[in-house]
Amino acid sequence: MENLSFNEYQLVYNFFSFTFAAMAAGTLFSWLNLGSVSPSYRPALVVTGLVTFIAAYHYIQIFISFAGAYSAIDGVVSSTGEAFNVTYRYVDWLLTVPLLLIELILVMKLSSSETVNKCVVLGSAAALMIILGYPGEISTDIENRMLWGLAAMVPFLYIVYILFFGLKSSIEAQPVEARGLVSQACWVVVITWSFYPVVYFLPMLGFESAGVAVEIGYSIADIAAKVGFGILIYMIARKKSEAEGYVAR
Amino acid sequence: MENLSFNEYQLVYNFFSFTFAAMAAGTLFSWLNLGSVSPSYRPALVVTGLVTFIAAYHYIQIFISFAGAYSAIDGVVSSTGEAFNVTYRYVDWLLTVPLLLIELILVMKLSSSETVNKCVVLGSAAALMIILGYPGEISTDIENRMLWGLAAMVPFLYIVYILFFGLKSSIEAQPVEARGLVSQACWVVVITWSFYPVVYFLPMLGFESAGVAVEIGYSIADIAAKVGFGILIYMIARKKSEAEGYVAR
Repeated sequence: MENLSFNEYQLVYNFFSFTFAAMAAGTLFSWLNLGSVSPSYRPALVVTGLVTFIAAYHYIQIFISFAGAYSAIDGVVSSTGEAFNVTYRYVDWLLTVPLLLIELILVMKLSSSETVNKCVVLGSAAALMIILGYPGEISTDIENRMLWGLAAMVPFLYIVYILFFGLKSSIEAQPVEARGLVSQACWVVVITWSFYPVVYFLPMLGFESAGVAVEIGYSIADIAAKVGFGILIYMIARKKSEAEGYVAR
Repeated sequence: MENLSFNEYQLVYNFFSFTFAAMAAGTLFSWLNLGSVSPSYRPALVVTGLVTFIAAYHYIQIFISFAGAYSAIDGVVSSTGEAFNVTYRYVDWLLTVPLLLIELILVMKLSSSETVNKCVVLGSAAALMIILGYPGEISTDIENRMLWGLAAMVPFLYIVYILFFGLKSSIEAQPVEARGLVSQACWVVVITWSFYPVVYFLPMLGFESAGVAVEIGYSIADIAAKVGFGILIYMIARKKSEAEGYVAR
């Protein structure tokens, strides 16, 4: 990150702390509510909680790394020489982004062969997207960022295609009470995930504080895509459990 | 480890953090899914989670030890003089490698006398393998590494023999739905474990950055052998529970 003003330092510092708290709370929400859905939907809630758990771990590390990379004494921010570790985000995404799609597939309750098949296909495309984005993120060269970013858009568009067309019949086979929510969940994936490329391409605009905007932007996107999406998955699991006559004891 | 470049430092650092996250997530996955398998298979899932739990603990220690042994200021990596503790890996393996075989035996649901017998025999062979490998790992002498490495191969080959021949009748006695997966699990043990001797013998090739390759190689092998294998054990437990008419409530 470029030279930070004290206000920018405070903003990023507090945003990382806020994001950690949101992820940790989201994790506990998913797992403490496991008993309120039918056993068929518990794997989906387990994975929902794993996504926010992994993200909570990485946000506490990002927070510690940021606190180590800058010192703020008497209102003056200076770099300590330790690198701010950008890679935590990508390691996080490599694990959580495939799991986010798996959470969606699990809550649909497809046949077990289709579940395995869709999890492998969507999970691999998601992992490939993250792997292609990384070299651009750590590059200081704008052209490189552009090229890798565009390459990562290919698996992203493939995922969008599967969500809107490949899963059409599976969505139509959902119980009528949950159909709207499942289709909404596909939309939420596409909308929240679209926010990431926007943030990714921000530094190309070449404005001051682009580094700050990237960190804040990714944090907001992560909260929406993981905690917000997780709450939606929980609601779908609840609706489907009720539709199937499940009564929690 | 030899002189590290900044990129090598970053790679190893992030790999340790990634492996910790994967182990912690694997642990929670096994334990949160306990209710989804019949009570007969819960001990297998408990042990599966213990393996990744013990590994998560050791990876966070390995990570801290690595961060203490090197400093990276302004992109220059230097040794702090504190030793990077290689022994964590062996302490981990001494506990987890016997448990991995026990997890496989438990999911087979043999008679209780055969379970005890196989757990003792395979667990002891696994512990012996780790004990024999250790003196070679900490030796700086290549010949020593070779000798102890070869000695450790003896119990390893014995384990391979038991998995393919000693358990043959037990595998054939598995319900038909799970037989393929159990036999696959034996193969996964042999394939993922074969990766360790390859990594172990790497420094003999005498190339630069062999230390980095060993750390990354062991981490990948650990994720495959513990988290990957654990997911397979979970799938076997699920399939067998269903075959036995178990319905989670």
